[in-house]
Amino acid sequence: MHEFAWIADLRRRTPPHPRVPIGIGDDAALLDLSATGHALVTTDMLMEGVDFVLPGTPWPPPGREHLADIRRATPEEAGRKALAVNLSDIAAMAGIPRAAFVSVALPRTGGAELAQGLWAGLAPLAEEFDVALAGGDTNSWDGPLVISITVVGEPGPRGAVRRNGARPGDVLFATGEFGGSLVDWHLTFTPRVREALALAELCDLHALIDTSDGLARDLGHICDESGVGVKLFADRIPIRPAARTGASSDRTSLDRALGDGEDFELLFAVTAVEAEKVEALSQSDKIPCRLTRIGGFHENPARSLVFVDGREVLLENRGWEHFLSDR
Amino acid sequence: MHEFAWIADLRRRTPPHPRVPIGIGDDAALLDLSATGHALVTTDMLMEGVDFVLPGTPWPPPGREHLADIRRATPEEAGRKALAVNLSDIAAMAGIPRAAFVSVALPRTGGAELAQGLWAGLAPLAEEFDVALAGGDTNSWDGPLVISITVVGEPGPRGAVRRNGARPGDVLFATGEFGGSLVDWHLTFTPRVREALALAELCDLHALIDTSDGLARDLGHICDESGVGVKLFADRIPIRPAARTGASSDRTSLDRALGDGEDFELLFAVTAVEAEKVEALSQSDKIPCRLTRIGGFHENPARSLVFVDGREVLLENRGWEHFLSDR
Repeated sequence: MHEFAWIADLRRRTPPHPRVPIGIGDDAALLDLSATGHALVTTDMLMEGVDFVLPGTPWPPPGREHLADIRRATPEEAGRKALAVNLSDIAAMAGIPRAAFVSVALPRTGGAELAQGLWAGLAPLAEEFDVALAGGDTNSWDGPLVISITVVGEPGPRGAVRRNGARPGDVLFATGEFGGSLVDWHLTFTPRVREALALAELCDLHALIDTSDGLARDLGHICDESGVGVKLFADRIPIRPAARTGASSDRTSLDRALGDGEDFELLFAVTAVEAEKVEALSQSDKIPCRLTRIGGFHENPARSLVFVDGREVLLENRGWEHFLSDR
Repeated sequence: MHEFAWIADLRRRTPPHPRVPIGIGDDAALLDLSATGHALVTTDMLMEGVDFVLPGTPWPPPGREHLADIRRATPEEAGRKALAVNLSDIAAMAGIPRAAFVSVALPRTGGAELAQGLWAGLAPLAEEFDVALAGGDTNSWDGPLVISITVVGEPGPRGAVRRNGARPGDVLFATGEFGGSLVDWHLTFTPRVREALALAELCDLHALIDTSDGLARDLGHICDESGVGVKLFADRIPIRPAARTGASSDRTSLDRALGDGEDFELLFAVTAVEAEKVEALSQSDKIPCRLTRIGGFHENPARSLVFVDGREVLLENRGWEHFLSDR
């Protein structure tokens, strides 16, 4: 791990962390995970022009004129997002994030200011979730910004929850709303770490995932790993207002909710009995977000979308293609 | 963590690992670290044109004509190096590497073949050191190759060894040879994981570091963190033959040994009594590499280079600037 002086300076402003007895200033950080003896590890790499577009970047590239008026991300938002997507992955296992390792390839021109912006965005989020910024690797080059973060956490008190435990008869719930994340949400969302831990504490989660690839596609991951099929209730899916505004004759707001991706909401499976508990929770203030029953699992591997008039169509695997990639 | 099908396919060929009960196919990997309850975490990001140059890349860029005839790295060598530098950081703490997380930004053209090459280089090294390839993030974009690896390990049986324990009177040793790493060594070296564990087992290491930034600069890190000075014996420094071949009137082979960097050797401090033990070890087959006494620490913070004729010069902080960066 190499640290340029200026990023080490920034980092020194963050207080030392009791769970990281050895951090900056050594070749590797030492984390105390003796409470559980287990590490949950996830990593995500974000790239300028793929996961966000910074101010001043020539845009759009040829062939992506339809993305010409995308809202630019500030460096702070880009840094925050890079950490938030990793925290969302820890939430998706009902884990507790402990430490983050931040590597960057900074453009040679303006790299120092950019790094300060990234840091100013990610440090408060780390603090909010009590995550130690414990190491990283700082580089500069002739290419665009790349930021790659690894978060190490621990399983929550009830253990890690996987994608593979949904059973026939289980009920499917979702947190929050879906679609239209590109307008703002993908840069501003708060990862559902607290919600996942509260849910795991209060009910028996059979399967859990976060929706980065899109509702349809991530639901498909639960089905694949669990060996079950699903009926998704089209009229029950909570649609983000931005998905309605951005809807067109080509892509309805439902299409957007199913396929846009980067919602970073949770999907989870519980028994029908536990579902009653979840519905009661959704009326209480124990879970600080909307919880909606949006479908049910069955033995037959088919994945379908059921409309309120009884019409049923196979749920296409319409999921996520990265928002800035060619569609 | 997103996985494209083809890299998941490659990874499925690697056997599941007993220490990683949950890996690919979930949002985060779960590692069993209950033996020690601690994680050692390090991360390094390597970039095309900075850490290696692949075949077919236009080279040299303007202003770096002096690097025109650099040896190109194969994709296998680039992948291997990306893992090896991280294993070297774990060695630098006398740790045991357990799992690696591999993120890549692949160029859109030829990315799939490139990824297979990277994998073919890093998978055998992971196997050699019993490191589980437990996750990652696979992306493609319009930029050059970036590969960012995080390795999670555990402290060895004697605990993690830091940079900050060298004391006045301690003796400085080095493994291997220094300088000229750009010719071949930076792509082919074997990280000193076994050597570090054996040394920590057989003697009381006060301080330990690996030399990525260059002998002079990394020795400076030990001095900085330990609050000591050092005398380095110029004639005792083992010089790699490639450093002699590449020497010039501008930069002697000694300059190269002190400053080239990317040697990935170990520097360590032990008491004078322990030094006798180390010298005996260097004659035995318990440590599978050359061990050389190259200096001594003292209370005065000065760092100097002592020649065999008694001449003494302040050791400039000549260390490492990245080999492909402008000097």
